[in-house]
Amino acid sequence: MNYGNKEKKIVYAYDFESAVDLTQELENDMPVYPGDPIPVFKRTKTISKNGVNLSDLNLGSHTGTHIDAPRHFFEEGTPLDKIPVSDFIGEAIVLDLSFKTVGEGISPEDLERALAKTSSSNLKVGDIVLCFTGCSRLWGRPEVNSNFTYLTAEGAKLLVSKRVRAVGIDFLSIEKFGSKTHDTHKELLAHGVFIVESLSKELERFLNQRILFMCFPIKFKDGDGAPCRAVAVPISQEGGRD
Amino acid sequence: MNYGNKEKKIVYAYDFESAVDLTQELENDMPVYPGDPIPVFKRTKTISKNGVNLSDLNLGSHTGTHIDAPRHFFEEGTPLDKIPVSDFIGEAIVLDLSFKTVGEGISPEDLERALAKTSSSNLKVGDIVLCFTGCSRLWGRPEVNSNFTYLTAEGAKLLVSKRVRAVGIDFLSIEKFGSKTHDTHKELLAHGVFIVESLSKELERFLNQRILFMCFPIKFKDGDGAPCRAVAVPISQEGGRD
Repeated sequence: MNYGNKEKKIVYAYDFESAVDLTQELENDMPVYPGDPIPVFKRTKTISKNGVNLSDLNLGSHTGTHIDAPRHFFEEGTPLDKIPVSDFIGEAIVLDLSFKTVGEGISPEDLERALAKTSSSNLKVGDIVLCFTGCSRLWGRPEVNSNFTYLTAEGAKLLVSKRVRAVGIDFLSIEKFGSKTHDTHKELLAHGVFIVESLSKELERFLNQRILFMCFPIKFKDGDGAPCRAVAVPISQEGGRD
Repeated sequence: MNYGNKEKKIVYAYDFESAVDLTQELENDMPVYPGDPIPVFKRTKTISKNGVNLSDLNLGSHTGTHIDAPRHFFEEGTPLDKIPVSDFIGEAIVLDLSFKTVGEGISPEDLERALAKTSSSNLKVGDIVLCFTGCSRLWGRPEVNSNFTYLTAEGAKLLVSKRVRAVGIDFLSIEKFGSKTHDTHKELLAHGVFIVESLSKELERFLNQRILFMCFPIKFKDGDGAPCRAVAVPISQEGGRD
């Protein structure tokens, strides 16, 4: 749909009209990290009875596609609402890590191998890195909820050394399931690198590409994290990046 | 902060690095529409006791800055999760309606008067219209929760006739408080024009201007509405950063 900008002859690098939703649906019986609260979504008023539809939403702060803020693991870390909104808009590289067996850890070597396949030039300071493990294809299969591909602490260190802004992954957690030490989370969050978890399988559309990525969480004050809407915007090749 | 794009000499019309948050904070004791559920945000695990911060979020679907989907008033209307994400990104005109006395209705004439003051050219098909009433300056004052400036049904009809995409307002509802017929909501939603309510007073920064507006709600399946993060991105006048 043309919303009227084209006639201005502004050259756009970002194709907003082709934006793709990377967000899992929030619904009853959706997958959650084992031990997290079971979300409950309930219609409380209906058009037939009350003339209006209204609902109650009851969910843990890390339900569905969501952001982890530094406050998740650090009492003095930045809370969710204090991350500037401009940080939630940025270019991202989508790494294809689906060559890993489900349940394995992503090492620095795996990241370098995936990076080498991207069409983009090198990772730039401030880039967002999105890891497609393929586990999102298995969303809804309970056995995967406690056995999914994760980023090792060493992998996290490599990304921190490259001064990325944020790291995303397409399943419930970026950490090895059941970790007691949470080394991957801590490595990223201690360096102010926020985390996006449970991206949907739509991420596969952008393997090895550079996209504009937006991931706006609800503004939960002093939050450790919160559900977000994550969106990929294709970058046009010809229109204006030269 | 330079995230590395400037050296590419891409011409940007939208200044993402200067994005401004238009979202109210979600917190206990925040204002809600009278009769709506009182939200409860509660830390359930803490770093000192559990090594991690986690929280529960309990809130009505129309709490804080939020979207109303057609499903809010029409059983066959589009639910929140079926509005394409590209519709949540678009250019908006910010109208200054703060000349109205708090509690008055915004008429078609008021809209035309405010439109005439904008720096932009005419309203275009697909534009988003954001109404700054000034009530957002009074956020937190309980007496305003049942007496705020609203859009009349005739005003809504005018905007529908101009084929706008969405209409936003900077207080709890776009409708006259206590309306039993909900004519303003129904006029907009029946025509697929979604509504953004409870924008923050930061909207005042952009009076009479055209901006890029983004308002991503969480992806509540079959939802009547849901909290969103609303963001204004300034449009550079000279078309570029180079």
